[in-house]
Amino acid sequence: MAGPCLVIFFALLLLSAIAEASQCSVKGLPLVRNISELPQDNYGRGGLSHITIAGSVMHGMKEVELWLQTFAPGSATPIHRHSCEEVFVVLKGSGTLYLASNSHEKYPGKPQEFKIYSNSTFHIPVNDAHQVWNTNEHEDLQILVVISRPPVKVFIYEDWFMPHTAAKLKFPFYWDEQCFQVPQKDEL
Amino acid sequence: MAGPCLVIFFALLLLSAIAEASQCSVKGLPLVRNISELPQDNYGRGGLSHITIAGSVMHGMKEVELWLQTFAPGSATPIHRHSCEEVFVVLKGSGTLYLASNSHEKYPGKPQEFKIYSNSTFHIPVNDAHQVWNTNEHEDLQILVVISRPPVKVFIYEDWFMPHTAAKLKFPFYWDEQCFQVPQKDEL
Repeated sequence: MAGPCLVIFFALLLLSAIAEASQCSVKGLPLVRNISELPQDNYGRGGLSHITIAGSVMHGMKEVELWLQTFAPGSATPIHRHSCEEVFVVLKGSGTLYLASNSHEKYPGKPQEFKIYSNSTFHIPVNDAHQVWNTNEHEDLQILVVISRPPVKVFIYEDWFMPHTAAKLKFPFYWDEQCFQVPQKDEL
Repeated sequence: MAGPCLVIFFALLLLSAIAEASQCSVKGLPLVRNISELPQDNYGRGGLSHITIAGSVMHGMKEVELWLQTFAPGSATPIHRHSCEEVFVVLKGSGTLYLASNSHEKYPGKPQEFKIYSNSTFHIPVNDAHQVWNTNEHEDLQILVVISRPPVKVFIYEDWFMPHTAAKLKFPFYWDEQCFQVPQKDEL
């Protein structure tokens, strides 16, 4: 009786591998894509919707990556830093940017607060710890995020007084996990 | 009688230098900026509105640059190529992307045509000749453009059959001209 079960098991395994490969393959994707039809997930974080508009892992980008993110009222990014440039454009809603620029200290320390609002833009200095928070109780915060040097390598802090050396590296980041492959060396 | 004239002349010269320096200086710019209040110009191209949201020359970005551009019906970019990644997000309107991917040939050749539309995204392979055209007679085309390796170095073609070697380099590009300075060597 083990025979048919094994066949079904391997058939399911093969199907799931094919499904995953097709979701992670650049090949077959149309050049012009409807953003509303791109994969969208919260990656286990309540109140978040994340879409990778153009990404390293999913679309073969090497130098820039774009995300469309929506934060429900009260939701936020973790306190984090990354060694890349990052530009934000606020498309809808409002909120607060917390930014700790004194990265010469041993820990981020008390951050500065900046109001962010629809049709505003800001960028985060490389390696500065920061957090974006939808502090508006009544409206979603929708942002377009551009980073350099994808895929992103994120160091996460539990609070603003955690030492930089104790911040925890999350790589590949949540939305890159499924399709991430260790890059192969360039052929000479 | 030359004395007072000379004083006025030099005072005006000084004032204009100060005005230009302040427009080109990152210092004093707020971290969070209202996109509606950023400088906007057509740089001599009819039907264009260009805003540098975050740029190399104007805001000190080193790895990514963002533009917000609006094309009136019938207006277009030149046929051009650049050695950087470029991602587009169409915010409003619709149009046509012309893309010549056979960059192994001596000239771009007849391009492929792709319909672009509100809430769509696409990226241009590095060095492929392309042109974005607002082919919608009734509506502006508004796009958000992300490039890597700023400031952009653009090679312009007069038509799709001009040899790659004859394409004309425009650097600094129109919106970078006023504030562009030859980069100084990094201090060791």
